[in-house]
Amino acid sequence: MGERRRLQHWRDQMREELDRVMDFWIRHSEDKEYGGFFTCLSQDGAVYDPLKYLWLQGRQVWMYCRLYRKVPRFHRQEILSSAIAGGEFLLAHAKHSTDSLKCAFVVTRDGRAVKVQRTIFSECFYVMAMDELWRTTNKELYKKAAREMMDQLVHWAREDPSGLGRPELPGADPVNSMAVPMMLLNLVDQLCEEDKDAAKKYEELGSWSVERILQHMQRDGQAILENVSEDGKELPGCLGRHQNPGHALEAGWFLLRHAMRHSDHTLRQTAVEKFVLLPFHSGWDQEHGGLFSFQDVDGHCPTQLEWSMKMWWPHTEALIAFLLGYQETRDPRLLDHFQTVFDYVFTRFLDPEYGEWFGYLSQDGKVALSIKGGPFKGCFHIPRCLYMCEVILSRLLEEDNQATNEL
Amino acid sequence: MGERRRLQHWRDQMREELDRVMDFWIRHSEDKEYGGFFTCLSQDGAVYDPLKYLWLQGRQVWMYCRLYRKVPRFHRQEILSSAIAGGEFLLAHAKHSTDSLKCAFVVTRDGRAVKVQRTIFSECFYVMAMDELWRTTNKELYKKAAREMMDQLVHWAREDPSGLGRPELPGADPVNSMAVPMMLLNLVDQLCEEDKDAAKKYEELGSWSVERILQHMQRDGQAILENVSEDGKELPGCLGRHQNPGHALEAGWFLLRHAMRHSDHTLRQTAVEKFVLLPFHSGWDQEHGGLFSFQDVDGHCPTQLEWSMKMWWPHTEALIAFLLGYQETRDPRLLDHFQTVFDYVFTRFLDPEYGEWFGYLSQDGKVALSIKGGPFKGCFHIPRCLYMCEVILSRLLEEDNQATNEL
Repeated sequence: MGERRRLQHWRDQMREELDRVMDFWIRHSEDKEYGGFFTCLSQDGAVYDPLKYLWLQGRQVWMYCRLYRKVPRFHRQEILSSAIAGGEFLLAHAKHSTDSLKCAFVVTRDGRAVKVQRTIFSECFYVMAMDELWRTTNKELYKKAAREMMDQLVHWAREDPSGLGRPELPGADPVNSMAVPMMLLNLVDQLCEEDKDAAKKYEELGSWSVERILQHMQRDGQAILENVSEDGKELPGCLGRHQNPGHALEAGWFLLRHAMRHSDHTLRQTAVEKFVLLPFHSGWDQEHGGLFSFQDVDGHCPTQLEWSMKMWWPHTEALIAFLLGYQETRDPRLLDHFQTVFDYVFTRFLDPEYGEWFGYLSQDGKVALSIKGGPFKGCFHIPRCLYMCEVILSRLLEEDNQATNEL
Repeated sequence: MGERRRLQHWRDQMREELDRVMDFWIRHSEDKEYGGFFTCLSQDGAVYDPLKYLWLQGRQVWMYCRLYRKVPRFHRQEILSSAIAGGEFLLAHAKHSTDSLKCAFVVTRDGRAVKVQRTIFSECFYVMAMDELWRTTNKELYKKAAREMMDQLVHWAREDPSGLGRPELPGADPVNSMAVPMMLLNLVDQLCEEDKDAAKKYEELGSWSVERILQHMQRDGQAILENVSEDGKELPGCLGRHQNPGHALEAGWFLLRHAMRHSDHTLRQTAVEKFVLLPFHSGWDQEHGGLFSFQDVDGHCPTQLEWSMKMWWPHTEALIAFLLGYQETRDPRLLDHFQTVFDYVFTRFLDPEYGEWFGYLSQDGKVALSIKGGPFKGCFHIPRCLYMCEVILSRLLEEDNQATNEL
């Protein structure tokens, strides 16, 4: 296949698949009675549990708004209405008490807290939802909610974590876990879109997040480790040796977007070489294909039971990372790797019968869990990937058109 | 094979395997510097993490003492010394603060708390360790530690859980999770051995635990569910439909022992029919063999990623349950099922190269994690099973001898 035909083929597949995936969520996940979304969905879309996991509520509101706002064929009233009902559900029920902004991790269908995590992630996805809802509806109320929560979670993450409720224990030294600066960088990207005031306000937070992510490059730049010490040193034991290839790849494209906004060529190169190519080379299963979920940098067997399973989200993050990396560098290796991941994904994860993707495959690529949604899988990584890939591929084809026209 | 030869073959295999397994732990797990045990051991016994998980510390102390006390060939000074060093490590470091008996879940090699669970299980295994250590050494100090902790954890479990630090949340109704009454019943069994005062003291707790376990028999007695409401009703959603065949089988032999102590034939029958045979029939993988880790009673796909993995401990509990059930009922079905599980276990889990068993197999029976110990797998289920099976099989053979002599 010629280069242009390859790009076109991928773009068409991404577009078609985005429509199928969104159709699944629009048909099955809306809670018309209480607002918000059912995300515990069986293979065929049936609700197998009415609990509402707040990461997924926030992410789905974000996804609906983003598509409504940016992609003409999704600019539909039903999508906007569902997103608003989801946002209102979050406003009414995310915070589990009146004396703190701390959000629950999971609530009942009608919004009563079931479980609270002592982390900042429910809050992060609340911010994404509210900010995108503001951009979509222009209602200041949502913007205010996003900014207020953002200030609070940054305070918890950088100044004083005591509001999260974690006990201080003498054997638990503070850890720089990559998830935290990654999420903060992603939020900076979200909040600063075409907003100079925000860009100024969050400039320092963005730099801090990048610096904290880069600390995870260890062993003379030959490995990305998921957890390092507060001063950027390798930690002892399993915690220190833990690797999460999907996270590294996701951090890769977050760093790339930061590099693009700041025209930072050094960071661009680090993002591609160290956070995209390196984790792909070490994290790809040479025998069965697919990305491992977890690894130990010294080759010990990880203690996470799912370490060798192939999950949907590391693969969606790899697709975005390779394509965005290619757009920025035109390094042909990135397009070849994109092809490898694309072929694996489109033959293994898709469900031609009911739509949406399976989330959890065994090491050898068989469906291990038939659910389409659950406590951690909702309407987010897959449509975000398909949407971003469609946009990037369209841009590449457009440039190619212009180049041809200029001949 | 004739019946007697079959029993003899199993007994010899159990005995030989117990020696091999204990040899692995004795050679690799002792921390000679700080006391206690390394349990994060690779396939070959190398320590891949020095952290000490307290469930496993308590269990290993118990196992060493029990074998020292009951099995002549393990009545060795090195085993007693390791057990005492482990017990002293627990006394010094299990409680993570001075104002409460609450124990940590995991501590550093030198005993500093890393993580605390808001449950009673570290405390349960602390009680088992201390009580068995008292029986082995006759030191009152250990008995006192066991009784004090027992009173505290029973108070947390039955009267007031606030000392565990769990927040009360409006969507989280109290749950009767089978693990709690199971562990309490197991502790009653432990504490009451040849001790009339204890038997009197814990009589009511034993009955309460049995009653709470029996509440998990649901759907007209056709299913054991892992979580029910405080008043013994089925709960909604995944939580309510959750099944754990290994737990049901383990509860089965805990109930059997209670029935034996109290000559309760009705309970004996319920234990065998409902907690041993029923979960085995529904939990055994007809295609690949082995017990599923988790199931959904309505056949939905569980959300636990490891649901279809075959783990070591449900199989050890099945072996004990079938053999003890056979000893008590002479129901030949139980011996046939024992054979099925025995054959699966001895061909799949054992590691002929380095000893000890693999803990985690994929659904189709391949080794998924090569570790011999980790945060949840230590020196407990396997040697307890081998020791109990050796004892029961020896007893059956002895009875058979007597019967022959009496002819």
